[in-house]
Amino acid sequence: MLTGKNLIAGEWRDGNASFEAVDAASGEPLAPEFAEATKQDVADACSAAAEAQNKFGALSQAERAKFLRLAADKIDALGEALTERAMSESGLPQARLTGERGRTVGQLRLFADEVEEGAWQSLRIDHADPERTPPKPDLRLRKIPLGPVAVFGASNFPLAFSVAGGDTASALAAGCCVVVKGHPAHPGTSEMVAGAISEAVSECGLPAGVFSMLSGTGYDLGEALVKDPHIAAVGFTGSRSGGLALIEHAANREVPIPVYAEMSSINPVVLMPARLQEGAKDLAAAYVASLSLGAGQFCTNPGLVFCVDGDAASQFVEATRDALPDVAGQTMLTKGIQSAYSKGIAALGRLTGVELVGVGAEGSSACGQAHVYTVTGEDFRKDKGFQEEFFGPSSIIVRCADLDEVANILASLEGQLTATLHMSEADHTEAAKLVPVLEQIAGRIIANSWPTGVDVTHAMVHGGPFPATSDGRSTSVGTLAIERFLRPVSYQDMPESLLPTPLKNDNPGCLIRVNGKHRV
Amino acid sequence: MLTGKNLIAGEWRDGNASFEAVDAASGEPLAPEFAEATKQDVADACSAAAEAQNKFGALSQAERAKFLRLAADKIDALGEALTERAMSESGLPQARLTGERGRTVGQLRLFADEVEEGAWQSLRIDHADPERTPPKPDLRLRKIPLGPVAVFGASNFPLAFSVAGGDTASALAAGCCVVVKGHPAHPGTSEMVAGAISEAVSECGLPAGVFSMLSGTGYDLGEALVKDPHIAAVGFTGSRSGGLALIEHAANREVPIPVYAEMSSINPVVLMPARLQEGAKDLAAAYVASLSLGAGQFCTNPGLVFCVDGDAASQFVEATRDALPDVAGQTMLTKGIQSAYSKGIAALGRLTGVELVGVGAEGSSACGQAHVYTVTGEDFRKDKGFQEEFFGPSSIIVRCADLDEVANILASLEGQLTATLHMSEADHTEAAKLVPVLEQIAGRIIANSWPTGVDVTHAMVHGGPFPATSDGRSTSVGTLAIERFLRPVSYQDMPESLLPTPLKNDNPGCLIRVNGKHRV
Repeated sequence: MLTGKNLIAGEWRDGNASFEAVDAASGEPLAPEFAEATKQDVADACSAAAEAQNKFGALSQAERAKFLRLAADKIDALGEALTERAMSESGLPQARLTGERGRTVGQLRLFADEVEEGAWQSLRIDHADPERTPPKPDLRLRKIPLGPVAVFGASNFPLAFSVAGGDTASALAAGCCVVVKGHPAHPGTSEMVAGAISEAVSECGLPAGVFSMLSGTGYDLGEALVKDPHIAAVGFTGSRSGGLALIEHAANREVPIPVYAEMSSINPVVLMPARLQEGAKDLAAAYVASLSLGAGQFCTNPGLVFCVDGDAASQFVEATRDALPDVAGQTMLTKGIQSAYSKGIAALGRLTGVELVGVGAEGSSACGQAHVYTVTGEDFRKDKGFQEEFFGPSSIIVRCADLDEVANILASLEGQLTATLHMSEADHTEAAKLVPVLEQIAGRIIANSWPTGVDVTHAMVHGGPFPATSDGRSTSVGTLAIERFLRPVSYQDMPESLLPTPLKNDNPGCLIRVNGKHRV
Repeated sequence: MLTGKNLIAGEWRDGNASFEAVDAASGEPLAPEFAEATKQDVADACSAAAEAQNKFGALSQAERAKFLRLAADKIDALGEALTERAMSESGLPQARLTGERGRTVGQLRLFADEVEEGAWQSLRIDHADPERTPPKPDLRLRKIPLGPVAVFGASNFPLAFSVAGGDTASALAAGCCVVVKGHPAHPGTSEMVAGAISEAVSECGLPAGVFSMLSGTGYDLGEALVKDPHIAAVGFTGSRSGGLALIEHAANREVPIPVYAEMSSINPVVLMPARLQEGAKDLAAAYVASLSLGAGQFCTNPGLVFCVDGDAASQFVEATRDALPDVAGQTMLTKGIQSAYSKGIAALGRLTGVELVGVGAEGSSACGQAHVYTVTGEDFRKDKGFQEEFFGPSSIIVRCADLDEVANILASLEGQLTATLHMSEADHTEAAKLVPVLEQIAGRIIANSWPTGVDVTHAMVHGGPFPATSDGRSTSVGTLAIERFLRPVSYQDMPESLLPTPLKNDNPGCLIRVNGKHRV
């Protein structure tokens, strides 16, 4: 059923060179072979996107919403076949991927609702005042799509952060055509999802250039995509080095473009003293479950846990040690990630002052074995190596002298996607002092749960200061993500007949700001 | 009265090296000498800003608004002394600078109102749903200040785009401390305004680091400022080369930061056929007035006028020729700008196909003499040199074969701050085809007036695609400018007592989105 071809504006195109999909658990190749997208494929996909852009960007809200919903339905219709292919390619378990499929289509439908809701247009009208000196013109503002967006699929969420993931959903919702670079770790999954979107494009009567998907294994494919002059913005989730390379390509273009790269986060968690005193064992059990979830291959994996040293901290460390052997080895997404994890652990184990708390069960050679370490705050501060992110089920417990040391270390951390406080009411006074520190370093502050788990909703921020993302002014999850792909335009003294529909005098029935006053 | 010193967090500090202010009209030095800010001054100002940031960022909306209003009052209180100093340093006429002072304080007061209005916080609440699988957490979102902002004063608006200009006003409104690099073309004006802001900081009991102002003539001062690790964003209005240099410094930092640079725009104007037929003479008179306003030293100067060739076009060119001799030579801002203008004109005059329509009166050697050229669409398309921006009262009339050629040329232009259509009702059908083209290249589309004149209001966009600005997703004029200096943070399951005030359950009385529904 799979063709192994690239999708260029509705056309499935074969190539000369090819690469193999790999079964993550067995390491065996999976049929068929996949064509490596060429520079010509990139140029053609981007040209088609540019040609389609004006028409797609000018769709009514209802038309764009209809398209997003149809794309969701088409992905739903792929059913278990999609889940199974994704399981083989990623090694992730069925329940996880079934959930991820639901999240992916739910995301598209949420953005369909968001497009219809309309507030994303940031509509503003300031009426003219001919009596003012100088006369005040009539000014009206709305946001329009930036233009075609290049989206890079991530390996760790073969559905929800990939071909039809959050970046694609928010870019399409904003009215931007999309060219996806599919991740070579799951090319079959990518092809199936791309086919579903392409069918929705065609059935809605949209120009085929609205959506293309290119697969390949070389860095030059991504480089060509980011450098294509038709591309107006980039969405990326992946490694820090990969993100930084794309940012550099984007900055060195004749016309530089924004890159929304989600890169590196180790997600500090603070166990406040009273809470730790109350429940060191429960916290340890939940901690071990969170750090090993999905073989630790989450951007929000709790990589650092801070506590004030003492009996309760020792109890937490002991309980963690006791819980670890029950963590089964889990297949990692790719051989490359597995080997980077092994190297990362080895490097961590060599840092001064680090002690191994315990390890999980070993599993096959494709698996990641859980590892937890401990270090004092003093030693942690001496070596930036403790802050290196590498994917997998490992974490470090940092035992500090007091909460001041915790606060100082937190303030010195690089930007993070999340920061978490576990606390009892007795901790609130001290926790209140930490909140402003956490606001400075993270995009999301979590109380009394674990950072793995990112709700797709209106008030979610999955973002944060560099290097968590390349642009802390945004989020890649939740409806606020649509803002990334828009820019404002204002219209001065424009005749009613030439105004875009949402700015005409009969208000479109969504949030609008008229002469400074918001009305719904 | 002037000290010639730099303002570092409330302290007026002298230096070793110094530079002279110059009377723009006479070229004579103006007392006193001004200290060149040193690297140490930069480091101290930025450290103080970082220290003040948490307190300033956490002010209530009322407190921040009060500070902005007091700053406006203090600048108002400088009165005619400020206007006079600015006149000497810039060569701009009194009426213009009186107006600009009003614009500057009006801008600060508008942002005070905006801070109180509160919608800029983008408040969102999604309530928990423990029944959902998995349970839905309580999520709340607000926007917080990015951190200390470096603002570069522009030479062409010594008040409204300088020390207390739009970038400073919007950054302070967002809760960001500000370190200004004052433009060396008006150091006395800068010192007076900086003193006024500093008094407001002190009288409001704010930490002195909230505001600093450094003067100097070397590029290394700006470089040091952008590279200082405490700086979180940059606002700049100036030349393309200057803007690009700052962007490069910002991108090469260990932690890259956003740069909002407003750089280069030649502001195309289209005279639609029926309108031109009706009133070629009136259009020519208004055109000549607009292109020579402020000696043409506006970012929104109408540098290109497009029309379809024919009798009406010839009449327009003739009327322009007739109107030009009445344009007096006007003192330009600096000797450097005057000489760049002379060179620009000479280069333009050498391009293939260009013809001189006419010139204005000559004026003194400090003056810019108005120059208007004409060229066919065909020749225009052959040479990118016709798109070079240089400051001054010059403009090019592009005579095209038909409206298709106009549309093709418009679509090929670089990003612009503005694009203008002069049209009669009989032109609306054809104009409707041009609007989508103009939306792609410009931040503001103007009907039936001239681009000089930028209203400070809610629906203004003074921005546009590269190279008009480095970040087309924003505006540097109007209340939407506050968005540039904010980033979202979300709070998950946070106890009520630890939530920031605007997100607590008793709604703050401003726009908020609760479970997806906006309410005012």
